[in-house]
Amino acid sequence: MRQSQLFTKTRREAPKDEVAKNAQLLIRAGFIHKEMAGVYSFLPLGLRTLNKVVDAIRQEMNAIGGQELVMTALQDKTLWERTDRWDDEKVDNWFKTSLKAGGETGLGITHEEPLTRIMSEYVSSYRDLPLMAYQFQNKFRNEMRAKSGIMRGREFLMKDLYSFARTDEENQKQYDAARAAYIKTFDRLGLGAVTYPTFASGGIFSEFSEEFQTISDAGEDIIYVHEGKHIAVNKEVYTDEALAKLGLKREELVEKKAIEVGNIFHLGTRFSEALGLAYKDEAGASQPVVMGSYGIGPSRVMGTIVEVLADEKGIVWPESVAPFAVHLVELSNGNADVKAEAEELYRDLTSSGVEVLFDDRDARAGEKFADSDLMGIPLRVVVSEKTLAAGKCECVHRRSGKTEHKTNTELIESVRPERRHGR
Amino acid sequence: MRQSQLFTKTRREAPKDEVAKNAQLLIRAGFIHKEMAGVYSFLPLGLRTLNKVVDAIRQEMNAIGGQELVMTALQDKTLWERTDRWDDEKVDNWFKTSLKAGGETGLGITHEEPLTRIMSEYVSSYRDLPLMAYQFQNKFRNEMRAKSGIMRGREFLMKDLYSFARTDEENQKQYDAARAAYIKTFDRLGLGAVTYPTFASGGIFSEFSEEFQTISDAGEDIIYVHEGKHIAVNKEVYTDEALAKLGLKREELVEKKAIEVGNIFHLGTRFSEALGLAYKDEAGASQPVVMGSYGIGPSRVMGTIVEVLADEKGIVWPESVAPFAVHLVELSNGNADVKAEAEELYRDLTSSGVEVLFDDRDARAGEKFADSDLMGIPLRVVVSEKTLAAGKCECVHRRSGKTEHKTNTELIESVRPERRHGR
Repeated sequence: MRQSQLFTKTRREAPKDEVAKNAQLLIRAGFIHKEMAGVYSFLPLGLRTLNKVVDAIRQEMNAIGGQELVMTALQDKTLWERTDRWDDEKVDNWFKTSLKAGGETGLGITHEEPLTRIMSEYVSSYRDLPLMAYQFQNKFRNEMRAKSGIMRGREFLMKDLYSFARTDEENQKQYDAARAAYIKTFDRLGLGAVTYPTFASGGIFSEFSEEFQTISDAGEDIIYVHEGKHIAVNKEVYTDEALAKLGLKREELVEKKAIEVGNIFHLGTRFSEALGLAYKDEAGASQPVVMGSYGIGPSRVMGTIVEVLADEKGIVWPESVAPFAVHLVELSNGNADVKAEAEELYRDLTSSGVEVLFDDRDARAGEKFADSDLMGIPLRVVVSEKTLAAGKCECVHRRSGKTEHKTNTELIESVRPERRHGR
Repeated sequence: MRQSQLFTKTRREAPKDEVAKNAQLLIRAGFIHKEMAGVYSFLPLGLRTLNKVVDAIRQEMNAIGGQELVMTALQDKTLWERTDRWDDEKVDNWFKTSLKAGGETGLGITHEEPLTRIMSEYVSSYRDLPLMAYQFQNKFRNEMRAKSGIMRGREFLMKDLYSFARTDEENQKQYDAARAAYIKTFDRLGLGAVTYPTFASGGIFSEFSEEFQTISDAGEDIIYVHEGKHIAVNKEVYTDEALAKLGLKREELVEKKAIEVGNIFHLGTRFSEALGLAYKDEAGASQPVVMGSYGIGPSRVMGTIVEVLADEKGIVWPESVAPFAVHLVELSNGNADVKAEAEELYRDLTSSGVEVLFDDRDARAGEKFADSDLMGIPLRVVVSEKTLAAGKCECVHRRSGKTEHKTNTELIESVRPERRHGR
């Protein structure tokens, strides 16, 4: 895409009311727009990035047999009354509203209830199980405070996977598959090294759950990390009893601040019993379905990547989620040959399937470089009088700052999508 | 995908409370699930179909230079007060709700207001225009009645494109480009022949607008069609004065019921003046931006396709939006050779990039054929003892009922994606 055509522009200053680094940088770089506190629109660059995060997660959910569907924001209150999660005294972050046709509805805070009902219409026999289904859907949570940018919004995108099994053992197999898929997912998203499966409270569902916690000073959670085992324990369950159960010793653990980027739960039969999701076993007896739930917030992941990888110049995207693979910067300074060379390279990269943001604007080099650093595209390729004379373009890696000089053919060969995905 | 793994099943009976044919068939075939009146979840087959509709529209919006973004459901009421569209006396279909942190918010019924504000932060000079931006976003409308299935929901997906221009002439060029893109889009979606650009009231925005109306007895609108010119006039503006302006004569027009599948509007400077979206012209004078808005509801289009193309056996999808290109039906009846042949064909089709639903279930032929007819996949391919003996599989076109016999190689050659998209 030509940057001259992109409607967003970068800004020097972050909005004064934004305290979160992720929101400051993403707004300055033109990736998101704040509608209200905790409510952000995703502008073209931001949507491209969010879609990359979504696609990576989707591939891993499909790989473990997840079937994608999409449920609704508007919720049938009768369902939530049956699981005792409608009452504001029990669940305190509903957005509720009235139907003109009569009655009350609320905006989905999560989707165990509606999916359990859907499954109750399709699952009747042991032959129908096990299965897993997931969606990408906006959740709405009426948070009292919203100061973490896109890491904790009042309206945010969630990937929620749910598993349905005949027995606890079968449920455990699904849980293990989802857990392994989560580890792969955070690896792909460039957060694997700093993201720890973390023992945490199971809340109302079970004794324990596992969170995926990414080390960051912007985190709201305190965790205790075991580097060797690459696992951690959330402060909320950091007791002698829990540590003994997990075979961990206090002296081996290090306290860190972290961001919760995912959470996986055993749900048992809490929802299936309340909502009548049962199957007939091989002997013809009715049994409740054993469930699990597995969440990752793609927008929160995107914010976390900014928090963790950004440097003093701006955002640094991993290749897997960058809005473009290459930021082609033309410094023609009115030189028609340089302009023609840059245009040709843009055409050649694009026709090789490489996603390129082409800075074809009539602007100074300093401005173009500052914008490029702020936006965080992994590879900047400069075409100027100097590079034209040398016969090689200048390639600067955003993350390492490493500079290489390559002919156009060498460059295209190194960034072709087949090559990047093949690694 | 293997049908034995798909969690949905077909049903013989439509739910008693559904009166719309589209909802009856889509629920029976397992494409959608009704959460509440006018609120539907999209199950795996339904989501695949909806995504095909979305992709076709997206490609045409990108082709005219539309930049994709995504805005939010939760709306800043102060914006809507400035355009006088917050008051329930003025706009009667808001879902409104309260923020725990204080204040009121509403669920987006449309998005002129927030996008105009976004643009006011990026557009300042004549050099920043013209531009077009669009999104796929759920709209929420608090309808009194919701009896049209996915054709008129309380929560539904909308593609809304907005144009921003310096002058009326420039706005007209954008309008013409969007209009042409809409005609191409409905052609791709298999509705071109029965969809008419239709003169209609401009509502509060302008004297006229244009709707895209698809002929169907399920329609809520009455239009007067000029077959030769392939245009129509909505009953609401069917006056001698309007007809004279359009150069149409009553005797050339035929009355039809129709479904509004799209709508394009000149907005003038109504929103830019109210919300301060202006640019400096070449002489340095501030001018309001001239806007247009262009909507298509992908879920309504999907429902319309069902209404228009379904026959007595079930749904009939055009190739462009079908959830799968091929419904491979294995009738092995316990014969291992037939089973092996079907498995091999499934592998070969899939590895050639063909999207296949493989009915590998242990079920009777009659049940498999009835399900296949109900689901409406364009091409059914049958592998049985008979076809194995003949060395050719049986290919039945859902729409025409035409049957052909092909070797596996001939079949694969005829349905490869390159071939289908090349036509």
